[in-house]
Amino acid sequence: MRISILGAGAMGMLFGGYLSQRNDVWLIDVNKDRITKINSDGVAVRETDGDMIFYPRAAEESESLGKMDLILVFVKAMYTCSALEANRCLIGPDTYLMSLQNGVGHEVKLLRFSDRDHVIIGSTQHNSSIIDNGHVNHGGRGKTFIGLLDGHSDRLRSIAKNFSACGFDCATSDEVKEQIWRKLFLNTSASVLTAMLQVPLGFILDDPYAGSLMEKLAREAVAVANAEGIASFDVDCIVADIKELLTNAKDGYTSIYADVKNGTYTEVDTISGSVVDAAKRLDVPVPFHEMAVSLIHAMENKNRNHIN
Amino acid sequence: MRISILGAGAMGMLFGGYLSQRNDVWLIDVNKDRITKINSDGVAVRETDGDMIFYPRAAEESESLGKMDLILVFVKAMYTCSALEANRCLIGPDTYLMSLQNGVGHEVKLLRFSDRDHVIIGSTQHNSSIIDNGHVNHGGRGKTFIGLLDGHSDRLRSIAKNFSACGFDCATSDEVKEQIWRKLFLNTSASVLTAMLQVPLGFILDDPYAGSLMEKLAREAVAVANAEGIASFDVDCIVADIKELLTNAKDGYTSIYADVKNGTYTEVDTISGSVVDAAKRLDVPVPFHEMAVSLIHAMENKNRNHIN
Repeated sequence: MRISILGAGAMGMLFGGYLSQRNDVWLIDVNKDRITKINSDGVAVRETDGDMIFYPRAAEESESLGKMDLILVFVKAMYTCSALEANRCLIGPDTYLMSLQNGVGHEVKLLRFSDRDHVIIGSTQHNSSIIDNGHVNHGGRGKTFIGLLDGHSDRLRSIAKNFSACGFDCATSDEVKEQIWRKLFLNTSASVLTAMLQVPLGFILDDPYAGSLMEKLAREAVAVANAEGIASFDVDCIVADIKELLTNAKDGYTSIYADVKNGTYTEVDTISGSVVDAAKRLDVPVPFHEMAVSLIHAMENKNRNHIN
Repeated sequence: MRISILGAGAMGMLFGGYLSQRNDVWLIDVNKDRITKINSDGVAVRETDGDMIFYPRAAEESESLGKMDLILVFVKAMYTCSALEANRCLIGPDTYLMSLQNGVGHEVKLLRFSDRDHVIIGSTQHNSSIIDNGHVNHGGRGKTFIGLLDGHSDRLRSIAKNFSACGFDCATSDEVKEQIWRKLFLNTSASVLTAMLQVPLGFILDDPYAGSLMEKLAREAVAVANAEGIASFDVDCIVADIKELLTNAKDGYTSIYADVKNGTYTEVDTISGSVVDAAKRLDVPVPFHEMAVSLIHAMENKNRNHIN
């Protein structure tokens, strides 16, 4: 397949690297240094047993590249539309647009650039963080689910097989929105709290106050998902699932924790912010989410400016 | 006057010290070391130009002390009832019970131990922090207002004069509840945020996210005060007042900031918690306050246990 990946960040390089084993992959990014580095030395992915090197190609401009079979969007959510706009020349009538970004509602943006039969949304358990220019750490592994907006997702089976052959255990699913929300329930409650409190995941399980905040945030997100008609989620089951995940990752730190600690911008708008956006549309009150978004942004500013 | 002060903490020692200049003062506390230290070396109060030493008496037990003219409660709010209960022998039919504690609603507790004509509430701008055993820093100065619950507060004029003669600029007021709430508006919004974010007061003014959180917290507290029928507070005026205070104390740190930082228990239940309690009684929604209380408690636990 001819694949373009918009955004050569941590996730873009991870997917671009592995997918380049069996596909013609172009990484598109506005960062010149990154492009030069990838084209000269490839993408290095740190695995548990050492670095893997891959050789996708990279470009700043996409004008000469022709139409793609698949465009995978891995820019930060706030740049999705501008990245697609700038690379519109890659999109033909048969081009699939895919988002595996965190958060919900990405399909609305993709639909501005293609029709419902060519928009793929999904969720992945793979995780990646930047080590340095062209070098990422493959921190998390697991399943990847992809699906179309109106079912018949088995049409994507060849893409799923392709991804699986490249190392991403991938399946098609007609419940992909449900899976995206399930991932969001964890991120918008426990993960965001680890950033706010600057603690490992286990603290959310052990501390009664953090635990009650996790439950309140999960409760709000579930109310939004149910109002959206995604599924009929049961809050108590969702909270039990989150607690089980926390039990299995007690000493783990989240990427949003690290972003706050390091004074870089977090994904809070993509995570909690997407719940707030959906809640506004559906007229569901989510005050805890609103407070979480503002607190994280204030913490970003504080740490970027070394205030304490 | 025969005065007992319940709680030989930072504020108890400050008031006990200064009031002992013209009154027969007993500090009552459960901390044996503190009692011994005060009885042997007095109370040392650090002023801008050096230490002042005062010699109130101190005791663990109050049984032999007889009835008092005035009992000033300076324990943490959660111990108000148990402290009064343990020292009930000090309370006669003419004994005034006074609270200058932060937060609102203390009169409800005092009324379990005396009648409405003998319960004094008030608000002070004086501030104090413990340096070490028997030694406090007089960090803030200003006015002290005292009043009765149903007006006619001029009956307290002799007490106010006595306090003023001892160094606390004190006036009686029939709007004392309003003054207590005005102080609370600042503490429950800006002060609590400085603790949550671990920043100096100026950050709340400079950062747009922290500023919007301050306004939302102030808005909730004003809604509760107005529902309580304290006054007809205007949110925009209150927010403007808070901003002016912040402008004049940009580099200042709050005591609740320091308590969180040092991993000790904060006054959050007295401050934000008293707004939540009143809100529940009055059926006013205060989700931002509820989240603030839980977050501060989680931070207390995190820092006490050195988790990060």
